Amino acid sequence: MLTINLVCVGNLKEQYWIDACKEYQKRLSRFCKLNIIEIAEKNQFEKALTLNKEGQDIISHLAGYSILLAIEGKQFTSEEFASKLQDKTQSVSTITFVIGGSYGVSDSVKSVVNEKISFGKPTYPHNLARVMILEQIYRAFMINSGSSYHK
Amino acid sequence: MLTINLVCVGNLKEQYWIDACKEYQKRLSRFCKLNIIEIAEKNQFEKALTLNKEGQDIISHLAGYSILLAIEGKQFTSEEFASKLQDKTQSVSTITFVIGGSYGVSDSVKSVVNEKISFGKPTYPHNLARVMILEQIYRAFMINSGSSYHK
Repeated sequence: MLTINLVCVGNLKEQYWIDACKEYQKRLSRFCKLNIIEIAEKNQFEKALTLNKEGQDIISHLAGYSILLAIEGKQFTSEEFASKLQDKTQSVSTITFVIGGSYGVSDSVKSVVNEKISFGKPTYPHNLARVMILEQIYRAFMINSGSSYHK
Repeated sequence: MLTINLVCVGNLKEQYWIDACKEYQKRLSRFCKLNIIEIAEKNQFEKALTLNKEGQDIISHLAGYSILLAIEGKQFTSEEFASKLQDKTQSVSTITFVIGGSYGVSDSVKSVVNEKISFGKPTYPHNLARVMILEQIYRAFMINSGSSYHK
């Protein structure tokens, strides 16, 4: 079974984000082994220092094929994202997605990941972004299984 | 005070979506009068019939300057969206955003709205899309007020 790691900076505080993520985690359990890895936010005074410290933690958790969500990444429709996921599962058993913190991620993370993808130009808070990526991964599996979830 | 209408197809069932929207509604109350208008989903056998019936309901609720969220719309960054909102508030007192149902919206809705905007290529469920647009509207107000919410 495919392992999907989701490396996120910062934890969820509000119960509604926790519950929304739990719902998608439950739905995804049919399709993959999902590990959510929370990196502590490093609230350093200097932005560069924060990114550097968070980046070291992120890099230590990269495994398999790594995909960073970044505004400069290539944009995909849900169907294209589903195809990508299916293609990758032919050659790797682990995919690691990374969502940065409120400052984004360090250049070292950007240079070390296998791929950068974008879900669009707007900026979202990390908690909402986590729900969005979980939904898109779930949608990808549903598309690939021929379900009518994606109309 | 600016009035913002958000016309959505379908209601929220899960408590976590309801609570997430409530949080952004509460935060937005500083900046605008927000009306959320829920159009009933018309589960007709025919997609065209569903869209037509939902479309009639949507059109009856359009007021002021109307903006449809549509995948073919122009994409904006959060900063660009904030500028747009600020520009519009110079000339109108009401802005109506429209989020379609699971089939999207009818061509008649697309032709009658003032503008179509897109938050990116992926497709999201209507409940998550509602949270996303509320967050982007809130972010826009925070950007326009010079807050550090948007880094």
